Amino acid sequence: MPQDSPQQPQRTDVNELGEFGLIDHLTQNFPLRNPSSLKGVGDDAAVIDNGKFLTVVSTDMLVEGIHFDLMYTPLKHLGYKSVVVNLSDIYAMNARPKQVTVSIALSNRFSVEALDEIYDGIRTACEYYKVDLVGGDTTSSPRGLVISVTAIGQGVKDKLTYRNGAKVGDLICITGNVGAAYLGLQLLEREKQVYLASPGVQPELEGHDYLIGRQLKPEARRDMIDAFEKNELVPTSMIDISDGVASELFHISKQSGVGALLEESGVPIHPDAAMQALEFKLDPITCALSGGEDYELLFTINPNDVDKVKYLPDIYIAGEIVPKEDGVKLNTKGGNLHDIQAQGWRHFDPSKLVR
Amino acid sequence: MPQDSPQQPQRTDVNELGEFGLIDHLTQNFPLRNPSSLKGVGDDAAVIDNGKFLTVVSTDMLVEGIHFDLMYTPLKHLGYKSVVVNLSDIYAMNARPKQVTVSIALSNRFSVEALDEIYDGIRTACEYYKVDLVGGDTTSSPRGLVISVTAIGQGVKDKLTYRNGAKVGDLICITGNVGAAYLGLQLLEREKQVYLASPGVQPELEGHDYLIGRQLKPEARRDMIDAFEKNELVPTSMIDISDGVASELFHISKQSGVGALLEESGVPIHPDAAMQALEFKLDPITCALSGGEDYELLFTINPNDVDKVKYLPDIYIAGEIVPKEDGVKLNTKGGNLHDIQAQGWRHFDPSKLVR
Repeated sequence: MPQDSPQQPQRTDVNELGEFGLIDHLTQNFPLRNPSSLKGVGDDAAVIDNGKFLTVVSTDMLVEGIHFDLMYTPLKHLGYKSVVVNLSDIYAMNARPKQVTVSIALSNRFSVEALDEIYDGIRTACEYYKVDLVGGDTTSSPRGLVISVTAIGQGVKDKLTYRNGAKVGDLICITGNVGAAYLGLQLLEREKQVYLASPGVQPELEGHDYLIGRQLKPEARRDMIDAFEKNELVPTSMIDISDGVASELFHISKQSGVGALLEESGVPIHPDAAMQALEFKLDPITCALSGGEDYELLFTINPNDVDKVKYLPDIYIAGEIVPKEDGVKLNTKGGNLHDIQAQGWRHFDPSKLVR
Repeated sequence: MPQDSPQQPQRTDVNELGEFGLIDHLTQNFPLRNPSSLKGVGDDAAVIDNGKFLTVVSTDMLVEGIHFDLMYTPLKHLGYKSVVVNLSDIYAMNARPKQVTVSIALSNRFSVEALDEIYDGIRTACEYYKVDLVGGDTTSSPRGLVISVTAIGQGVKDKLTYRNGAKVGDLICITGNVGAAYLGLQLLEREKQVYLASPGVQPELEGHDYLIGRQLKPEARRDMIDAFEKNELVPTSMIDISDGVASELFHISKQSGVGALLEESGVPIHPDAAMQALEFKLDPITCALSGGEDYELLFTINPNDVDKVKYLPDIYIAGEIVPKEDGVKLNTKGGNLHDIQAQGWRHFDPSKLVR
């Protein structure tokens, strides 16, 4: 009777398809049937029409050992971040999150006090972003911790921004700066390795508050959604930067049927990130384009709207949407054109950096 | 630097509080802030007011080794069931599911073909129940399989049924029969143990199709929601039977501020379940009240509505709502009154039954 379920006659490794290929593969035969399902798989969030407002739904799963390492992630920060990354998806639709559900599976090595810390972080995020925890599930796991959060938001029909609305000639904008969260992670990983090798050695994390903060306590750009509303700006497309600028730009290009020309000089990099990249012997622009988890917003605007963003703090015009045939390219500071590579999997395979 | 996060100065074991105590504890400081949040934690689903229709949201997480055992759970059934158990929560609100999101974390021992089987089951459930897959997340896990599903439904304000609406004098009704899914699980567990002890022995599962089917391929009672609508019946309270009749009755009693008197003779038990319970030397009524995963509906109706259910197939009147002081009790066939015990954790600790 016992079937060895994971064994199949044909065996294709999951990694062969990559994250996005896998999602495409798995969801290809799921047509939308309900008139209320306006948008299904393939954007930052699903969109449901239940009357006056649109309901926007996004879900994310964080797995111990893949998305976080409890050796350097305080549980409160983990709870906070698990909510924020989902809210970021709702904002990336130009909508406002209103509710979250949180499901947690955890092994018996976690105490109630440990769970309380996670929920403290969840509560802090709910308070700061004014969202309500309205449900969830708490269950056992044979080992490890898994957190699955679903965020539910409200949007207005004419203002929702999808990934497929970019037009040739639109300007590519980035909020905040990118690459810092990735470098923060590399720092934490480096110190973890040092500690594991010689537990007596003090970690060298001083002076790295900014980078580590970007990794452990990201914020979602609610302020930008407010600024858009105040300035009556509706981006033509938008996505949040969870997997890295390169990856997100590919999503927008693919779904909008366009190409993109990114200017290296327009990609915002924090001085601490640039310095740290060099110290790690990494190219800062590579970290900025391929590092993820910054939770900034990448969006495109009609060039006629340029005045609406020009004087807003923290918005950088980083390139232009071009015809599809022109591909997705980076114009370096040196004036060379490089193809930008698409990236996959949301989690990192951290380089083994030593100090 | 490395903090040993799961270690806390005070350490309360999660099991000390029980599932429901833990949920109460964790969610006690989450007031609802948004006017659109009509109902938060504590019912089958959350209720959100986004305009004309109400949006009903439920989420559940299934963990390998806790909620399912891949040794006897076909992956397609697992995918099907993971959707159905969430739809059941939406129906238990007297609402209709319209969308689902599915997040899956899995280790590299699973192939794309294995994932395809899970999604085949998900697709079959989506088609049968006419719901749309609108999002989700696919990610790695260091080991094991975790599936988290969120169902989103549509309801009408005056017809949603909560757990807190039961009134003294209301009749307690149960759809279908209960206890069979639990006994199906016991059969599968028994054969697994036999197989592990002597892999050559053929499993004795013949003749047990009904019980095993109730465990591996449960259905949600959409037909009952249709029948309610047709007969213009709105239950005064409702809950789906995932943890067992006893547990669900406690939820309704606690949240409605009432007691309940259940008649043993009114609790529907399938003949196969009764027979199998006796073979296992278990009391059939105990299996019926404490076994879970039947995904039938437990609901209460105003006695004036009794004609509306009397002639419906598959609805059993199993007792009456009584004043709170009278407690939650079972009137046995022998005429004795027993306190019904509250149950916890949704997953089972299967008795080690041998044949």
